[in-house]
Amino acid sequence: MRTLGIALIGLGAVGRAFIALLQARRAYLAAQYNLDVKLVGVATARRGTLFCPEGLDLAALSAVASAELSAYPDQARLLRTLEPLSLLTRPSVDVVIELTPTVYARDAEPAMSHIRAALAAGKHVITANKGPIALAYPELRAQAAHRGVFLGFEGTVMGGTPALRMARQGLAGCQISAVRGILNGTTNFILSEMESGKSYAEALSEAQARGYAEADPSNDVEGIDAAGKLIILAHVIFGKALGLDEIGREGITRLSQADIQAAQASGERWKLIAQAAIQPDGQVSASVKPMRLPLSDPLAQVGGGMNAITYQTDLIGAVTLIGAGAGGTATAYALLSDLIELAEQL
Amino acid sequence: MRTLGIALIGLGAVGRAFIALLQARRAYLAAQYNLDVKLVGVATARRGTLFCPEGLDLAALSAVASAELSAYPDQARLLRTLEPLSLLTRPSVDVVIELTPTVYARDAEPAMSHIRAALAAGKHVITANKGPIALAYPELRAQAAHRGVFLGFEGTVMGGTPALRMARQGLAGCQISAVRGILNGTTNFILSEMESGKSYAEALSEAQARGYAEADPSNDVEGIDAAGKLIILAHVIFGKALGLDEIGREGITRLSQADIQAAQASGERWKLIAQAAIQPDGQVSASVKPMRLPLSDPLAQVGGGMNAITYQTDLIGAVTLIGAGAGGTATAYALLSDLIELAEQL
Repeated sequence: MRTLGIALIGLGAVGRAFIALLQARRAYLAAQYNLDVKLVGVATARRGTLFCPEGLDLAALSAVASAELSAYPDQARLLRTLEPLSLLTRPSVDVVIELTPTVYARDAEPAMSHIRAALAAGKHVITANKGPIALAYPELRAQAAHRGVFLGFEGTVMGGTPALRMARQGLAGCQISAVRGILNGTTNFILSEMESGKSYAEALSEAQARGYAEADPSNDVEGIDAAGKLIILAHVIFGKALGLDEIGREGITRLSQADIQAAQASGERWKLIAQAAIQPDGQVSASVKPMRLPLSDPLAQVGGGMNAITYQTDLIGAVTLIGAGAGGTATAYALLSDLIELAEQL
Repeated sequence: MRTLGIALIGLGAVGRAFIALLQARRAYLAAQYNLDVKLVGVATARRGTLFCPEGLDLAALSAVASAELSAYPDQARLLRTLEPLSLLTRPSVDVVIELTPTVYARDAEPAMSHIRAALAAGKHVITANKGPIALAYPELRAQAAHRGVFLGFEGTVMGGTPALRMARQGLAGCQISAVRGILNGTTNFILSEMESGKSYAEALSEAQARGYAEADPSNDVEGIDAAGKLIILAHVIFGKALGLDEIGREGITRLSQADIQAAQASGERWKLIAQAAIQPDGQVSASVKPMRLPLSDPLAQVGGGMNAITYQTDLIGAVTLIGAGAGGTATAYALLSDLIELAEQL
């Protein structure tokens, strides 16, 4: 049995779902992958940290994970005072799972510093944070290769739906010339609501009431979130580093009920489409913008908070993947799937 | 550089496309997977066989692959008289790719005998033939495990679209409780043609004229082909061996233009749906039958010769994959993708 010690940096909805998933899948991981996963540390920005080289008790941790970690019961060799950067470099940590809240379009801190420090210390890194991967994938990949460690980020695009794994493994041997998708569930939900008659403002309010959109929704509705995912796709598929300013970007804020109805009258539907294509000379063009799609387009039928992606390949034509694009458990699954990929390489 | 000697048994459209693909991807396989693929033998039932331990010339073979292999030019150590079963057990053969025409619902011969012989001789086996996998997967898998060899069959379901790889790798760590799909392109094409006003007979004639349907179309239109793919999915996903008689099966032959129009009037669409689900007690129920789907169902929008599959999972809900379900190059790609998976395990 191979033991992997995990440090979890950031403990929001995804982190809590990941802890629950580790509990539920412990026997499965042992039986299927000969893997014993031990959560040795967890760090939050304002609710404390916990570290124990023998492993934290997952049930006890789950019970306090939404509140102050000071309520976690005492155990031998437990430390409650480590800074994240000190915690994640401890010898008993094999894998750092980075889940801190970041603003990716700015500097993606503190996730960026955490990931750099973890890789420099020779730790495997798994993250669902778009920011560091969108901003610095070539650097982080080179550092991971240099240290011989794993860098997993399946959860950064389409949550738990294996969009990146599909491009990397499922389509291995094909050449992908273009990618086109609905990569932001919040805007897709808003557009679906507008189709049922709501104004943009009403649909946005509904999305905020359900917790899909934040109080300041600009990251979603201006297409910034989708552009970040497109940057990650361009890294993985084309090996090209795009800046946010290289992506022609238009959000959904100017779409009116009249626009929605005009599309419906023509048998079409508005969708916020992220797309990128590589030219024969290696140039990559990319955009995020609302587009009218005919109902026969697989992406036109993707409603509500769902996401979808179509890869255009040389050998098998278009391949489309449709699935949930967010959610705590789904994104936690993406982390688990990276952990499984890592385990298979060990 | 690792060299793999390949024997190709069966040289129809898929085999010829595979030879072309090997030519096109030779440099890629070397650079990406450190793999030198050498086609050492090819066998047909009535057009001759060729075997050369140093490898056949792919360009020369391509030139004669649609006709008599006797037109292939002489080369040192070339043999033209080997029987398939003698050819595939030669020491220079590492991988047997089985592509002979078979009737899967009967005995899947001669593919079954070829695959058994290849595994018994310790050869890796890759096939796009449904028959042997649907009929005897537990036996063949056990034999492959016993000999420590690879058994690849991605091309048996949805052609080149990585439906099985998605279930095995892309969704690793999820539990799949149900699968539901459009697994036969011929019937989907016929139904799409009927939607545009043709009668069943006219639509079938059109499918036959395009080469999608055979002169005796029963394997497709009676749902036998889709049932075979469902059996393979049940093997892979649920670890259950279903017999063809355990699948509730109804074809599309009784659908009339009136049925099509009635569905259209209700905002629905007929599709030939193959589905299987596992119950908590481990029982698997499976059927292939025409169903009326609402247009909002991702499968309702899959038109023409396309295929699609939806996996119902515990952690990420429904995941749908849409892509081409047949085609020489696409199925040849499935063989290549198995070869790549094998190479990564060596």
